[in-house]
Amino acid sequence: MTGVTGTGRPINAMCVTPFDDRGHLDEDALRIIVDGLATAGVGIYLGSFGSGEGHLLSEGEIARLYAVGVDAAARRAPVYAAALGFTSTSAVIDAALAAAAAGVDAVQIHPPRPGPSAIVPRPAELDRFYADVLEAVTTPVHLTNQVVMVGYRLPIELITDVLASYPQVTALNTSDPDLAAVARLIRAVGSRTGVYVGVIAQLVSALAVGGAGALCFEADVAPALCTEVINAYQAGDPPRLEAAFERLLILNDVLSRYQNPRSVKAAMTLLGLPAGELRRPYLALGPDEAAAIGRVLADLDLLPE
Amino acid sequence: MTGVTGTGRPINAMCVTPFDDRGHLDEDALRIIVDGLATAGVGIYLGSFGSGEGHLLSEGEIARLYAVGVDAAARRAPVYAAALGFTSTSAVIDAALAAAAAGVDAVQIHPPRPGPSAIVPRPAELDRFYADVLEAVTTPVHLTNQVVMVGYRLPIELITDVLASYPQVTALNTSDPDLAAVARLIRAVGSRTGVYVGVIAQLVSALAVGGAGALCFEADVAPALCTEVINAYQAGDPPRLEAAFERLLILNDVLSRYQNPRSVKAAMTLLGLPAGELRRPYLALGPDEAAAIGRVLADLDLLPE
Amino acid sequence: MTGVTGTGRPINAMCVTPFDDRGHLDEDALRIIVDGLATAGVGIYLGSFGSGEGHLLSEGEIARLYAVGVDAAARRAPVYAAALGFTSTSAVIDAALAAAAAGVDAVQIHPPRPGPSAIVPRPAELDRFYADVLEAVTTPVHLTNQVVMVGYRLPIELITDVLASYPQVTALNTSDPDLAAVARLIRAVGSRTGVYVGVIAQLVSALAVGGAGALCFEADVAPALCTEVINAYQAGDPPRLEAAFERLLILNDVLSRYQNPRSVKAAMTLLGLPAGELRRPYLALGPDEAAAIGRVLADLDLLPE
Amino acid sequence: MTGVTGTGRPINAMCVTPFDDRGHLDEDALRIIVDGLATAGVGIYLGSFGSGEGHLLSEGEIARLYAVGVDAAARRAPVYAAALGFTSTSAVIDAALAAAAAGVDAVQIHPPRPGPSAIVPRPAELDRFYADVLEAVTTPVHLTNQVVMVGYRLPIELITDVLASYPQVTALNTSDPDLAAVARLIRAVGSRTGVYVGVIAQLVSALAVGGAGALCFEADVAPALCTEVINAYQAGDPPRLEAAFERLLILNDVLSRYQNPRSVKAAMTLLGLPAGELRRPYLALGPDEAAAIGRVLADLDLLPE
Repeated sequence: MTGVTGTGRPINAMCVTPFDDRGHLDEDALRIIVDGLATAGVGIYLGSFGSGEGHLLSEGEIARLYAVGVDAAARRAPVYAAALGFTSTSAVIDAALAAAAAGVDAVQIHPPRPGPSAIVPRPAELDRFYADVLEAVTTPVHLTNQVVMVGYRLPIELITDVLASYPQVTALNTSDPDLAAVARLIRAVGSRTGVYVGVIAQLVSALAVGGAGALCFEADVAPALCTEVINAYQAGDPPRLEAAFERLLILNDVLSRYQNPRSVKAAMTLLGLPAGELRRPYLALGPDEAAAIGRVLADLDLLPE
Repeated sequence: MTGVTGTGRPINAMCVTPFDDRGHLDEDALRIIVDGLATAGVGIYLGSFGSGEGHLLSEGEIARLYAVGVDAAARRAPVYAAALGFTSTSAVIDAALAAAAAGVDAVQIHPPRPGPSAIVPRPAELDRFYADVLEAVTTPVHLTNQVVMVGYRLPIELITDVLASYPQVTALNTSDPDLAAVARLIRAVGSRTGVYVGVIAQLVSALAVGGAGALCFEADVAPALCTEVINAYQAGDPPRLEAAFERLLILNDVLSRYQNPRSVKAAMTLLGLPAGELRRPYLALGPDEAAAIGRVLADLDLLPE
Repeated sequence: MTGVTGTGRPINAMCVTPFDDRGHLDEDALRIIVDGLATAGVGIYLGSFGSGEGHLLSEGEIARLYAVGVDAAARRAPVYAAALGFTSTSAVIDAALAAAAAGVDAVQIHPPRPGPSAIVPRPAELDRFYADVLEAVTTPVHLTNQVVMVGYRLPIELITDVLASYPQVTALNTSDPDLAAVARLIRAVGSRTGVYVGVIAQLVSALAVGGAGALCFEADVAPALCTEVINAYQAGDPPRLEAAFERLLILNDVLSRYQNPRSVKAAMTLLGLPAGELRRPYLALGPDEAAAIGRVLADLDLLPE
Repeated sequence: MTGVTGTGRPINAMCVTPFDDRGHLDEDALRIIVDGLATAGVGIYLGSFGSGEGHLLSEGEIARLYAVGVDAAARRAPVYAAALGFTSTSAVIDAALAAAAAGVDAVQIHPPRPGPSAIVPRPAELDRFYADVLEAVTTPVHLTNQVVMVGYRLPIELITDVLASYPQVTALNTSDPDLAAVARLIRAVGSRTGVYVGVIAQLVSALAVGGAGALCFEADVAPALCTEVINAYQAGDPPRLEAAFERLLILNDVLSRYQNPRSVKAAMTLLGLPAGELRRPYLALGPDEAAAIGRVLADLDLLPE
């Protein structure tokens, strides 16, 4: 069966960060969005560097993001801190400790990427980074194998060693276009901790090799549809699974068309959710582009009456 | 449900080409191998450019390969011609007609790749190539979307148009590392023809979006295990599916370790199958490497008593 | 001839940021390093995200870096601000204005990269970003076409338009593995502004198509050797050019072996320069690795007596 | 200085293969084209897999190609065989021996690529391939490091060993987008044999590190312009060099626009040369595309009066 560790949820959303029309963090809107995700029962990652616009936030905004998110979720669903990484080890630690103090259920730690270019850390640097961070951050941690963002794949041996040494690591997210590598990773560590895929088309293959679920932007728009794929799989109902998975992949296609967070915010707005403005350099989609997304959402019966 | 067109089988093997120790095509060995695959009930592709060493065969050898393969299969399983492509359009047509005359059940047509480098054909060249070939070759044809081999992805619109115009096309194989693109292709044409994936880790996700099965080298070694994944999926039995799929992906890993056809031939030899020598520039794996493969096959209970 | 705009120098160094053994910015060491570069007559970029460890610096450290650098250069060589980018447009502008206020001769502006992953900005976003930044930052600006760091290439039309609209842009740095694209860029804008390459092996081809020079880490270690390549080229002396260029490429090889800033700091230390410690997650090279660099520096006659 | 071994020429053309309007090899046209190249004093590669459409030729056509080419060149310029490779070792040897018997001055040997996909040969396979081929082919041989076509880079140590063991190797062509790797290769073997680049933008940097020249398709269209770049470099005349190199890169741009052999044949036709038809799956450029090429050729003063 597909393992789910602790209080983790099989579906987790990379929650968007809403801005008001003056460009400020919109706390009221954030409460509404987080409340919806918590009601839907999915895990909530705040401030991710992709859909969460985490790289565009100030330190003060990140603190508010976590505080408001934790409060709005009200322990109905786990809230995770994702707006940290890609800087010095000590700055990563400081940000993780601040997030933990804000009450999040876990802090997500990306692989190190000290320069913005693809300077791949050396093996000793990787070992040292995880030791430094996980000696200092003893509250629950989610690791990522973020191949798409950092440009390299964490060695499975390193992940195995870290999981053996640091019990506070309670989940592993993997965004890796190579599904065979994802499957190897799940086989290696899936019995120790839940492994969640970031490429949604991989979800059913991943479940079939012991994966725990997904961390995805589609859950911002259609958390119930994401969960239905998990449930249909576990129910052993191929027609139901195919109906749900096909709809989810159609949603993935349309949300990928203009990349995220652009498309996710446009889709949420169409659903009546206060996703708000994008922060520059991002610009909002044009009306024709949003309308095209709307037509697909309508075909999928995702639009409100 | 997962569509299987006509007499197609959900699992298809890229059959190896056995050579004797003087380097000649070993027809007796070929008969034994094809007989085993036919008995196992999988489709049989002969002379593929990867595992089938098709690029290393002379025209005369290819003719014998098809003739012996068709005879050995004795209509218990379909036999397909795969040793053609990557040359002039007229030479592709001639090779396809010769294969059809040899009695194969279908001829596989790769996308054009006129130079060995990644010179991507232009849209008009693609249209013309498929029109030229499919006006001339009116016996059953399998198309491929061989992204791995040719370096580009066929446009879905082109595939849709070709399928609409040429009813002799009865299957579509796709080897594409991008699973989202595979899923889009299946959604677009899966109701018209069976779509078979070449990246085995994609198999369950592909089934769950309407794919028909796989064309893979793993089926040379463990056709029953490949078929078990299909059956377990269709039976709606997640634990059975996970048991089979995990074993299949472990097999994939070990067969990928030294790339193909090297590893497949070594594994078949360990199983007692007369896979024979590799043709140079390929060299056989060393004894330690073969032994490492043998240990995994033993763990998977694939070795004979 | 190779155009050099204004007070620009043909050779520019991506200056390292020295840390003391407690990990703090070492201002005394910085003064010594900047003084050496200014004496050698090369332009000085401070806090670059690669060799300058700019991504690992706090806002306060960046302010000191610029202030100390400007003071140490004492107008003998131009000093440029490079520790900014890859965040929101308004944060980029604020950092640029702060740098200008600190007295740097120009501020380097990277292409936008709002997420750490390769989310390529859309054309309208690129136009808006440059308009937003260059309407706000009216002091001298250097642009970059940082393909290596940002994962995409700026369209030549955009660069041409920006250069036509904003006279404060006085240089264009390009780090692009595709030399044909570099040459196209130089042909398009080389008469308007100096174009400087970041891939040092491209330098002579770039000079021969009208390029102005280089922005490189090799200049931290051997600024005179870099300048000698320029001078030998302009003198029309092939044997002299070949002697210098071969030495420079040997230096490039050894400095690339363990990537930067690791190797550059090790090499500078061997030369007696106070490059100081690396900031974690970077770790210093091992003694054998540093010794291997030392042997090449000795062969190149770069080591002090 | 830039070394030129034996009778080699610094500029070498990947000669097109002309077909008449019925699609047959046009021997009269071939004579005219080869005569022009021989008169211009450049080396002549026949049947290359890119511009020479070698992959689209039958064995019989290849034999005629070499025979006619050798006869037409009449020893005024060296003629090399390039229509072989990417199949079994023994078939490569047979093709090389046939070419040598046809009187070519050298046979070009590509790195092995046994499958059409990027199955990288293992080190022992590479060693064995070169030993097999070079023990059998004892007439002059040109090696290639064809990264663009085969998808991997030959190790420098292998090239050094092969050059030390087999004196019949008299040139090394390298088509490698990584100029730093090209420079390393030239430094390693440039004193033993001439190294010729395939990426024309690299030419001047390559000359400045000891390279011998180029093997390129631009020489089909403008052999004198290619040679002028070499002469201007050797004369130590930067303005003359820049004038010629800029023109050559403009030519490269326009010939790359629709890829080769399409653009080269269109350009040659505009110049009044009988380049003939393309063989399918290639299709000729449209009239607007050819006209666009013509405008650039006119700007470059390459068109006949």
